[in-house]
Amino acid sequence: MKLKAIILAAGEGKRMKSSLPKVLHKVCGQSMLEHVVESAEASKVEECIVVVGHGAEEVKKSLPEHVKTVLQAEQLGTGHAVMMAYDHIDEDGLVLVLCGDGPLITDETLNQLMEYHTSGNFSATVLTTDLTNPFGYGRIVRDGDFQLDKIVEEKDASTEEKALQEVNSGIYCFGAGALRKALPLLKNENAQKEYYLTDVLSLIKKDGEKVGVYKTTDYREIMAVNDRIQLAEVEELMRKRVNRKHMVEGVTIIAPNNSYIGKKVKIGKDTIIEPGAMIKGNTIIGEGCTIGANSNIDNCIIGNNVVIQSSTLVDSSVDDYTTVGPYAYLRLKSEVGKHCKIGDFVELKNTQFGDYSKASHLAYIGDAEVGKHVNIGCGVVFVNYDGKKKHKSIVEDFAFVGSNANLIAPVIVRKNGYVASGSTITKEVPEGALAVSRSKQENKEGWVARKGMLKE
Amino acid sequence: MKLKAIILAAGEGKRMKSSLPKVLHKVCGQSMLEHVVESAEASKVEECIVVVGHGAEEVKKSLPEHVKTVLQAEQLGTGHAVMMAYDHIDEDGLVLVLCGDGPLITDETLNQLMEYHTSGNFSATVLTTDLTNPFGYGRIVRDGDFQLDKIVEEKDASTEEKALQEVNSGIYCFGAGALRKALPLLKNENAQKEYYLTDVLSLIKKDGEKVGVYKTTDYREIMAVNDRIQLAEVEELMRKRVNRKHMVEGVTIIAPNNSYIGKKVKIGKDTIIEPGAMIKGNTIIGEGCTIGANSNIDNCIIGNNVVIQSSTLVDSSVDDYTTVGPYAYLRLKSEVGKHCKIGDFVELKNTQFGDYSKASHLAYIGDAEVGKHVNIGCGVVFVNYDGKKKHKSIVEDFAFVGSNANLIAPVIVRKNGYVASGSTITKEVPEGALAVSRSKQENKEGWVARKGMLKE
Amino acid sequence: MKLKAIILAAGEGKRMKSSLPKVLHKVCGQSMLEHVVESAEASKVEECIVVVGHGAEEVKKSLPEHVKTVLQAEQLGTGHAVMMAYDHIDEDGLVLVLCGDGPLITDETLNQLMEYHTSGNFSATVLTTDLTNPFGYGRIVRDGDFQLDKIVEEKDASTEEKALQEVNSGIYCFGAGALRKALPLLKNENAQKEYYLTDVLSLIKKDGEKVGVYKTTDYREIMAVNDRIQLAEVEELMRKRVNRKHMVEGVTIIAPNNSYIGKKVKIGKDTIIEPGAMIKGNTIIGEGCTIGANSNIDNCIIGNNVVIQSSTLVDSSVDDYTTVGPYAYLRLKSEVGKHCKIGDFVELKNTQFGDYSKASHLAYIGDAEVGKHVNIGCGVVFVNYDGKKKHKSIVEDFAFVGSNANLIAPVIVRKNGYVASGSTITKEVPEGALAVSRSKQENKEGWVARKGMLKE
Repeated sequence: MKLKAIILAAGEGKRMKSSLPKVLHKVCGQSMLEHVVESAEASKVEECIVVVGHGAEEVKKSLPEHVKTVLQAEQLGTGHAVMMAYDHIDEDGLVLVLCGDGPLITDETLNQLMEYHTSGNFSATVLTTDLTNPFGYGRIVRDGDFQLDKIVEEKDASTEEKALQEVNSGIYCFGAGALRKALPLLKNENAQKEYYLTDVLSLIKKDGEKVGVYKTTDYREIMAVNDRIQLAEVEELMRKRVNRKHMVEGVTIIAPNNSYIGKKVKIGKDTIIEPGAMIKGNTIIGEGCTIGANSNIDNCIIGNNVVIQSSTLVDSSVDDYTTVGPYAYLRLKSEVGKHCKIGDFVELKNTQFGDYSKASHLAYIGDAEVGKHVNIGCGVVFVNYDGKKKHKSIVEDFAFVGSNANLIAPVIVRKNGYVASGSTITKEVPEGALAVSRSKQENKEGWVARKGMLKE
Repeated sequence: MKLKAIILAAGEGKRMKSSLPKVLHKVCGQSMLEHVVESAEASKVEECIVVVGHGAEEVKKSLPEHVKTVLQAEQLGTGHAVMMAYDHIDEDGLVLVLCGDGPLITDETLNQLMEYHTSGNFSATVLTTDLTNPFGYGRIVRDGDFQLDKIVEEKDASTEEKALQEVNSGIYCFGAGALRKALPLLKNENAQKEYYLTDVLSLIKKDGEKVGVYKTTDYREIMAVNDRIQLAEVEELMRKRVNRKHMVEGVTIIAPNNSYIGKKVKIGKDTIIEPGAMIKGNTIIGEGCTIGANSNIDNCIIGNNVVIQSSTLVDSSVDDYTTVGPYAYLRLKSEVGKHCKIGDFVELKNTQFGDYSKASHLAYIGDAEVGKHVNIGCGVVFVNYDGKKKHKSIVEDFAFVGSNANLIAPVIVRKNGYVASGSTITKEVPEGALAVSRSKQENKEGWVARKGMLKE
Repeated sequence: MKLKAIILAAGEGKRMKSSLPKVLHKVCGQSMLEHVVESAEASKVEECIVVVGHGAEEVKKSLPEHVKTVLQAEQLGTGHAVMMAYDHIDEDGLVLVLCGDGPLITDETLNQLMEYHTSGNFSATVLTTDLTNPFGYGRIVRDGDFQLDKIVEEKDASTEEKALQEVNSGIYCFGAGALRKALPLLKNENAQKEYYLTDVLSLIKKDGEKVGVYKTTDYREIMAVNDRIQLAEVEELMRKRVNRKHMVEGVTIIAPNNSYIGKKVKIGKDTIIEPGAMIKGNTIIGEGCTIGANSNIDNCIIGNNVVIQSSTLVDSSVDDYTTVGPYAYLRLKSEVGKHCKIGDFVELKNTQFGDYSKASHLAYIGDAEVGKHVNIGCGVVFVNYDGKKKHKSIVEDFAFVGSNANLIAPVIVRKNGYVASGSTITKEVPEGALAVSRSKQENKEGWVARKGMLKE
């Protein structure tokens, strides 16, 4: 039995006041649509079909290649949207209909919905929940057997119906055959001239088939985003969910309300996340680390027992027992070894930095291979750009590069090489040699007085 | 008809435990009094009179010149405070009485109060609200016609009266004539020996005039600040109000509870505000920008599609498509053009920085004019201070300033000039010339071993 | 009468999923056990005995020397834990039993408990509180006289008992003699084969002695930590308690939910704490300071009217009217005088920095004595490390060290000495002398064109 999901992602989202299509707005670093696709793919669903419309090209581009899309050129209602995917609906199997602007739905709930649908022999099942304030949602009207009688929209609801707290999530599970049969019969004979997916339920019922209602207790899962306030609310809920998961697994998060961890991030136990940390992308952090306050880590691999203080790390890796920061910046595939120190005001770019090496302060190390046990002094610049192109530098094991030195790439400092402070190095430093380019110090006595600058 | 506001701002605020007068404590970056004056001026009020007392000189100085002040040398009650402004009260028109320590009052509510007052032909109208916990507030006792009977202070209230939830905000609208007439009749025959403004309402009633009650549903508007805990509460409420406004208008605020935006800040749609950002003063931010986590932006003009990462910008401007940070510092009227890069550990001070120019890391650029397409290398210092005074540097279009170079101001690097890394530049670099001040590199073989420093 | 506390700290805390013993997990920068010991010691308790078990050595090491420990090698219940301290229990006096994983208990409550116990002539008193959701806690069953009937564990509770909201805190006050008498009689005849401390209460009652119940209204004081989610909750509550105390005393905390202040920190009035600030250890901050957003201050002494912007300060001091940051790093016993400026991207390490001196940007000053009125230029490096060991530098009053200069330690710049920008200083600079080590600038005309690098 084939399980497919049709994800509605064609809406504009006027209240977002955005030039970005609504479903591409991000929650915890990923687009809302991406979250929905991921939940569907994490459930038993085998194939996702995304119905695109507003910003169709942009939305398509945001999706992984294997996700199919169909175009809804005009937005004529949710039923119309599903019609666009008609060719993808099989004769049998199941079809989930999901909302691209509802990123909090989980694979567990989708599986439960499908399970309920199947075991109850329903031809269609609507996912519902109870809301304290159901205003604006379609209400679930149950019949005497506590089965679905109908779904009533806010504007059509009687006072009694308005008092109902069970609402339509906009998420459904259909028997594929029943859906195929009903869709062509949909009509748009209503004030909005729209094709409503809810009418499919009526058609299926009319056809003598069973329509089920599966109610989830967690109302948050069905929250849809229509404006930036809701976007922020949904972001906060997902953040809490992610943080909670890490805490359960043995991560200390000092201020969960002020820690920003992406859904895909992995963190080992006994790692401490300080307030204000942002950890994004596919970052993996080992055990026993401290991710210091306000650190910003994106797509990085961090080993065990690493301490990062208030630093920014992008697309880089840091191995065990290394300390970084405060105020360091690692980027573009920099790889720092074990037991290293990358100190304050140090930037590494596209650099391999060997075990036990140090760059303790105020240095730029770019396009370089730095060996083990190397000391990079304060103010050192790896001059990788000559105005035309970028070159590479190599500093071998045990080398010492003195403060404020320039290494003009391409250049090599051989093993145990020693660069005197303040030198500009333009040619190879041989193994064990001192390299110096420096003028002698002259003291001009009385100069300050002659310049009238004596201060006391 | 003249509309005036008398703002009570003479109190000491003992529970603030401060050497600053209470009304000067700040909420979202502006003094409480400033907020009240702004709300009054945004309403139909034409003239504000501030009653100053504690810290009178300081309070006066904090106000714009056009705002009148009167001195209440001794604090003998709210009625006494209003008496101090007697000469400013006209024969007709309206007089609002506002509290300088209640910064959340809005112009909308003030206009509604005045509208209610006028349309109901009242001679005095008190602004009220319902509080779940009314303890400490004066209670509004209504008569049989649901009109004001009296206002009872906590200490004078019967058990029944204490149960009343409608409270006096301390904000009133008076007919100017009625107020003029009543004020001289006020007496201080009470335990505190104070002149109470609430007694004016009784006097007006006694005089056969109508006293109205205008109740607002948003209790937050009437919150007064008496200690630092309330100060923090009011700050949080105003912050939420400001953030909400921006979200409605199409700004993404990832963590509204942890984003600090001043009331006057303007932000274009599709700009993203990351957690911990502080945006203050008269800052204007364009569309499609990212204001990165923990950025601190004060009084700046930011164009469209600018990306700022964890940086501090004060009194400066940054034009379209430029990226700043992480850990950059722009200040004192620095003006950065379009498509520029100001990278990590870079400070700009009082500098014009032309389109397409870059200072990617570890540089100080002060008192300078930098042209277009200029490259400022890493570790470059614009040496603007010689111990006596500051001088200006000019770097023309297409120039390249190599790493760790010093430009000793005053100095000019002409168009296409090229400063070699590690050079100290003391005189003009001609157009298209290479400027270099550098000793040759000498390699002393075996030096490291001789020094006993071979490490392996 | 001797007052002792036995603190139970032997548990593993499996749900913490940690290799650290549970009681060593930190709340607001101190271990939970440390908080409990501090509360006990702040109360009338004269001696603390900590029962250690899991991670016994680590837990012992974490405690001050004067705190006694006893080992509970196997964890056979709370009664068993107290038995381990049997030799420390006197014939008379009081014994408090406290939970090492309940860091929110206060000395006030402990004193009240002991007071209640003593004045009521009880032989044992249990501390209780009402919980809205008592699930999982032992319920307090009262008898007809509203005295303790028994304590029923969740699993043994009847439906009626489960509905009781008053719960056992796990904190008790015992008459020492009664406790001594009852402990040897404890049995482990139950499903868990554990010795329960609650059974001591029954034994004491059987013995005809009075057992009291002291209920505290603040349920937070009895919260125990069993997983990282509870750890974060307790952290938040303690944070709020600490912040509230400072606000009451006249400190402005702009965002109390996002300000992280350790329990021992002292802050003077009219100091402003901006969002994201972390203030740790034994830090003392004077009056009228601004501790800027995201500053990280650990174990520092800050004077009055100091402004710190987004900087990291560890084990250092900063005197009155000095400004620090943004993005500065002070560490390892650095001492900064009055009216100084430590600007952006400046690191001070183990340095005395005299009054009125400045290091405005991009400098490293390590192992140095800097006098008064000294100017340290941009890019200056105090080269304290030669690859073998660290040396000290001295810069005397009124000296001027030009930009990008290196001071190779050990070295002295005498009073009024002037180091030219870009110089590397290896020997003493005499008083009032200019020291320069610099090659002359050469301009090579047409070089850029010859290199094919003319850009326009």
